[in-house]
Amino acid sequence: MLTNDDGVNASGLNSLIEAIRPLGEIVVVAPDTPRSGMSSAITHYIPIRANLIQKEEGLTVYSCTGTPVDCVKLGLNKLLDRKPDLLLSGINHGSNAAVCIFYSGTIGAVFEGCIVGIPSIGISLTDHSSCADFSQAVKYGRIVSEKVLAIGLPDGICLNLNVPKNQHVKGLRVCSQTKGYWTKEYEVMKDPVGRTVYWLTGDFLNEEPENKSSDEWALDNGYAALVPLYIDMTAYSFLEKIKNWEKDY
Amino acid sequence: MLTNDDGVNASGLNSLIEAIRPLGEIVVVAPDTPRSGMSSAITHYIPIRANLIQKEEGLTVYSCTGTPVDCVKLGLNKLLDRKPDLLLSGINHGSNAAVCIFYSGTIGAVFEGCIVGIPSIGISLTDHSSCADFSQAVKYGRIVSEKVLAIGLPDGICLNLNVPKNQHVKGLRVCSQTKGYWTKEYEVMKDPVGRTVYWLTGDFLNEEPENKSSDEWALDNGYAALVPLYIDMTAYSFLEKIKNWEKDY
Repeated sequence: MLTNDDGVNASGLNSLIEAIRPLGEIVVVAPDTPRSGMSSAITHYIPIRANLIQKEEGLTVYSCTGTPVDCVKLGLNKLLDRKPDLLLSGINHGSNAAVCIFYSGTIGAVFEGCIVGIPSIGISLTDHSSCADFSQAVKYGRIVSEKVLAIGLPDGICLNLNVPKNQHVKGLRVCSQTKGYWTKEYEVMKDPVGRTVYWLTGDFLNEEPENKSSDEWALDNGYAALVPLYIDMTAYSFLEKIKNWEKDY
Repeated sequence: MLTNDDGVNASGLNSLIEAIRPLGEIVVVAPDTPRSGMSSAITHYIPIRANLIQKEEGLTVYSCTGTPVDCVKLGLNKLLDRKPDLLLSGINHGSNAAVCIFYSGTIGAVFEGCIVGIPSIGISLTDHSSCADFSQAVKYGRIVSEKVLAIGLPDGICLNLNVPKNQHVKGLRVCSQTKGYWTKEYEVMKDPVGRTVYWLTGDFLNEEPENKSSDEWALDNGYAALVPLYIDMTAYSFLEKIKNWEKDY
């Protein structure tokens, strides 16, 4: 199963479809419009729709009016006839390294697949251009997909692969999620009648630029960065420290 | 700083404001309409707006056209005059236990506060009613807030507090995030012209109902459940196992 957050027509998704067709039967359920930055948002106030837009030997494509997570949920609940062997999300137009995993619809879809027990991989290229060259991202996406199809993933673990836009990627590095956050996040502007509006922008502040095990370091140094993510977010060691907060009030 | 995902007029938020006014100066930045299920979604295709709707001694309230995470970002970047000592998100109308942390806008706001280094707590009541009784959630929210104001939280750790709707909550339990997922997630319906639409619903499948350390168990048994969450999602032990995937291609 494939999805993304840039929409069903995005060239990143379509490059990935072509690259992995030899690996098996593919069903795509992707948003009908770009839904970048949607995180794990779900649509519940209104219903969603799906449209079958392509069906040929080995490839079925649906567009969906929902978010990336809606696409995964609807695919698994209603559109696919069996649980898929693998969920790929992407190839995203732009990096999803470091804390971008929290905001990314691409990674939201990956978490959703992982929650329901499907080996799930997010694939992103550090190039926002709609006509970016996806060849290196496709290459590394396929390498990682083949490994996961062969050996699976442990319960609760999914993968986040980011590939730098360099023409010659140096290799694959297995990394940790870089610690950091965004700063200077709004441009203050005026609307046509002079009222203040705020438009999201920002600079990423890397809090550990020297950490050679981090995904940002790998990308900055020309490597593809693969981060295994665990969806049980419980901070177990701190949990033990605050056990004494328990009290029968 | 306070926010939520049910909107600035929600009674859960307003109950919380009243309860914590004695603790210090309060600035609220909350969505102008309900934005439940928005996860950590961010608004970037269009600008957002903020409106000052209340200002009195010790209390300033802004409504914002963005998501809960937008509210936190805009508050910290543009509306507050200093970094807050504490971020509270809620009180949410409905549970945010187990994997609901992935879909919840309330918890999205908590992750955002944590990413930028603010001690952050999500507070939820397991009652969706707009006129729910928030007294027990307020009580436990204040207990936990006072503890955090006194001792802080470690870097990268935030808290997820869920309170059952029972009139007499038995006490506080420090818990892990329950393992589970949602099933039977769509009702298939027809729109007025006969086209198929899918409306999100579902049953939560608890994969560890006997785990007395889990938040769902605590809530089912009449306790308030406090889960510390760690925003570094790297699966470190699995990372070591796949280090041998590294290769210079």
